[in-house]
Amino acid sequence: MKKIKIAIVGYGNLGKGVENAILHTPDMELAAVFTRRDPMSVKTRTGVAVYSMDAIESMKKDIDVVILCGGSANDLPWQTPMMAKHFCVIDSFDTHAKIPEHFAAVDASCRENGTLGIISIGWDPGLFSLNRLLGQAILPDGKDYTFWGKGVSQGHSDAIRRITGVKDARQYTIPVPEALEAVRGGETPDLSTREKHTRECFVVAEEGADLALIEKTIKEMPNYFADYDTTVHFISEEELRRDHAGIPHGGMVFRSGRTGANGENSHIIEYRLQLDSNPEFTSSVLVAYARAAYRLYNEGQIGCKTIFDIAPVYLHPESADELRKKLL
Amino acid sequence: MKKIKIAIVGYGNLGKGVENAILHTPDMELAAVFTRRDPMSVKTRTGVAVYSMDAIESMKKDIDVVILCGGSANDLPWQTPMMAKHFCVIDSFDTHAKIPEHFAAVDASCRENGTLGIISIGWDPGLFSLNRLLGQAILPDGKDYTFWGKGVSQGHSDAIRRITGVKDARQYTIPVPEALEAVRGGETPDLSTREKHTRECFVVAEEGADLALIEKTIKEMPNYFADYDTTVHFISEEELRRDHAGIPHGGMVFRSGRTGANGENSHIIEYRLQLDSNPEFTSSVLVAYARAAYRLYNEGQIGCKTIFDIAPVYLHPESADELRKKLL
Repeated sequence: MKKIKIAIVGYGNLGKGVENAILHTPDMELAAVFTRRDPMSVKTRTGVAVYSMDAIESMKKDIDVVILCGGSANDLPWQTPMMAKHFCVIDSFDTHAKIPEHFAAVDASCRENGTLGIISIGWDPGLFSLNRLLGQAILPDGKDYTFWGKGVSQGHSDAIRRITGVKDARQYTIPVPEALEAVRGGETPDLSTREKHTRECFVVAEEGADLALIEKTIKEMPNYFADYDTTVHFISEEELRRDHAGIPHGGMVFRSGRTGANGENSHIIEYRLQLDSNPEFTSSVLVAYARAAYRLYNEGQIGCKTIFDIAPVYLHPESADELRKKLL
Repeated sequence: MKKIKIAIVGYGNLGKGVENAILHTPDMELAAVFTRRDPMSVKTRTGVAVYSMDAIESMKKDIDVVILCGGSANDLPWQTPMMAKHFCVIDSFDTHAKIPEHFAAVDASCRENGTLGIISIGWDPGLFSLNRLLGQAILPDGKDYTFWGKGVSQGHSDAIRRITGVKDARQYTIPVPEALEAVRGGETPDLSTREKHTRECFVVAEEGADLALIEKTIKEMPNYFADYDTTVHFISEEELRRDHAGIPHGGMVFRSGRTGANGENSHIIEYRLQLDSNPEFTSSVLVAYARAAYRLYNEGQIGCKTIFDIAPVYLHPESADELRKKLL
């Protein structure tokens, strides 16, 4: 069997996750890692070769799908359309509000160059989006709920780190148990931001810093914390390293809907993720959808796709016949 | 907007569920109900016209998709391929072991006649199958678990009703809480049949019947009950009617898998359904996939499909652009 040849662009947590995930996918192999850093300075865990970004075009015949593992703020908006000039591409672009714009840019590049791209793959956007769509399609008379956590929010952790006197920080987003129980129990409450999630912050302060001021600054920070019940714990650098080194995350998507002549029957669909490592799980989703990108392209499809456009059969290594027999 | 014209074949619980579901789908209308009974004897809740099965061919131009609402044992194996000669069809065929055979029959009929069919739509087979596939594709190093219930099993209730001295019965399939908690907590136990589900039976006995013998016959019934911890309660006909009139069901599909260089991170995907009415929920899934059948056929696709072959975008009434903006 010919293996699908994958290239990674960007060797951070996500890129490393893709490298590990490919070890569990017998139908794929990692061809190369590309970096904007000096390639000599990057050593991959599995020993796969590292190249400068500039070298990627010369390796066209060695690569089937490029998985872009950069950030949504500064990397993917230009990298994905650029790479789509030469390769089938897939990314985890997660700035929800800018997805239509990113889609248009990648779609234009793909169509101009006869390639296929898949954007915004992961769990949110990604699997959670898929479940929001399915829930609405199946139970049109109903309500959606998305809860995130318990998990580490990198954006909120970064926001705390920018405060004067803060050395390091970790922020957990936590669903409010009462809200979860109400939704899971079939109620369909209207929930404010504050009623859905709380925020818990573990902060390492610099020596002599004004702790009360740091706490106040966090709790009053607009958009990030002001609309939530926020708890702040000051801990030592050692405690942060020891107890908060992981990057867990997860959450739930609910669809709570009614059927029957008079809406007398209620139904609750819940999709729940509990993830030890947010980037490694996202990597695993990317790898499954990279398989779909390869297969769809080989069927002659081009242009930009999202998780909504991919039939599930393209994701699994086994044939449609086998899947009907074993999993249907 | 041109509405999608649906016909129902078979006006039992499932057919009535489809009739109700279409009321919540502004892009569809119910064109007709077809029955094998005397059409004069069937009165639909919404007043839609009822015809004899023989009349269906003459109404070809009035129908876009036929939803087959008969049983998997005796109706669908011949009805779905027969209807596929003239119409796009969709069914909820749920005899797992016979799906490949049914698929082949429907596929042959569809291809010969240029129609499109979708089989085995519902929640298991159906949404649960989809989640088994997704889980395996995303976390290849892992284990699957499917739990059913708490819910009424019609097959098991029927098996009890066939016992001498039994007037009526209702059987609930119940997941074992300890097994559920173990899987949800990240353990990956090997579970026997007995360790996964218990069976609870509510039985109305005929006057003077040998209750001890009925209980023994139930508990020792091979395949149905012998491998399970089974509880039998004798109740009155009135209690059965009062407390066990509903047809609730549901369950969970789990994928518990590991990632990382040495499998050091674990992840749990859980898909859970809590359904007040098993047939009405199945009907709702059928209606969403009937929309996909119509759209795919209008794109020129023919042949038999399953839930694995349908891209999610085809299920939702809104456009791909809107879905990317609102749900991704």
